[in-house]
Amino acid sequence: MNPVKKVPLPQRGPEAHERREQIINTAKEHFRHYGYSKTSVGDIAKLIGVSNAYIYKFFSSKQDIAEAVCAETLGKIDDELIAISKLKSSATNRLRLTFKALMEKSLELFFEERKLHEIAALSSANNWCANTNHQAVLFSVIEQIILDGREEGVFDRKAPLDEVCRGIVDAMIPISNPLLLEQKEPEMLEESLVALTNMVLRSLAV
Amino acid sequence: MNPVKKVPLPQRGPEAHERREQIINTAKEHFRHYGYSKTSVGDIAKLIGVSNAYIYKFFSSKQDIAEAVCAETLGKIDDELIAISKLKSSATNRLRLTFKALMEKSLELFFEERKLHEIAALSSANNWCANTNHQAVLFSVIEQIILDGREEGVFDRKAPLDEVCRGIVDAMIPISNPLLLEQKEPEMLEESLVALTNMVLRSLAV
Repeated sequence: MNPVKKVPLPQRGPEAHERREQIINTAKEHFRHYGYSKTSVGDIAKLIGVSNAYIYKFFSSKQDIAEAVCAETLGKIDDELIAISKLKSSATNRLRLTFKALMEKSLELFFEERKLHEIAALSSANNWCANTNHQAVLFSVIEQIILDGREEGVFDRKAPLDEVCRGIVDAMIPISNPLLLEQKEPEMLEESLVALTNMVLRSLAV
Repeated sequence: MNPVKKVPLPQRGPEAHERREQIINTAKEHFRHYGYSKTSVGDIAKLIGVSNAYIYKFFSSKQDIAEAVCAETLGKIDDELIAISKLKSSATNRLRLTFKALMEKSLELFFEERKLHEIAALSSANNWCANTNHQAVLFSVIEQIILDGREEGVFDRKAPLDEVCRGIVDAMIPISNPLLLEQKEPEMLEESLVALTNMVLRSLAV
């Protein structure tokens, strides 16, 4: 995902980082208004006022930029979930909030404007967003809440922790995978959110 | 999904049905060997020994044929699940078998040969396979097993039946949606199967 591995950066340090962010944000806006397929690397370069070659110092292709947009979107969701896991609230409540926030943030960030659907669909179909980092964050957020709930004495301790967390992270897929979100009616999604959250909580009951 | 709604059949009765089946099976074989994008309606017509126009009496497009292949595949999975729901075995065991069979049959039928991946991916991306009939079968199979388990006294009766079934059907998505199946490593899938099945069973415990 990191272009540093693919092509050498023109300069190191904060300036390069800012440039990269600028490209990502400009691309995101353009994708949002005109769609992924109607955006070229040239469009992005023109908007920033640099050459195509300059963009290619940071990203190897348009898809590479779209993957970065996608990774950034997931990063924002992760930040939200980490904040929830640290709230001073019961483990049960934090687990509910995690499910709800994951669905709402995914809908908001991937679908706030119609045109981003295309990226969400492409990213799901091509597995761009299934990046290891996001999966690891999700798993560790859930693990923390489960451990807290076990300590509070409200979650059962018999089932293996890893298996419990795996099951919960998997149970979040139907309400967070962009492609699945796109296919479901909003009322159905709301029903699934309630059904899955309650099922997970029943499975944890002492 | 049924082309009868779109174009009038050239003849009614068993002969038309057989012809339709022949087109579906021929298309499936061709898709499997050469891929969806490299198959034309003309290829299918030639293999059967009829004109393109004749095929168009049954199906409005190549996609229409692919949807029928997809629906037939889901139908085979449904038959298997219905058979499991009727087994003379405990509700717990039948629920385990349902999860396992759904994953194995989905993998087998969608991915028995590499080239069918393309159809599976297309069908997921375009929601061909999310047909109401398959969803209804899945829901009713689960409902029957839950009702039996409640009667046996091994499944809790407090949670609303509809919500319980919705949660379980949703929890099956990560191990049966063709696009998700395609993205996951086999060992990860096996882990998810165990984690989700055990989670569902814990959520039903009295």
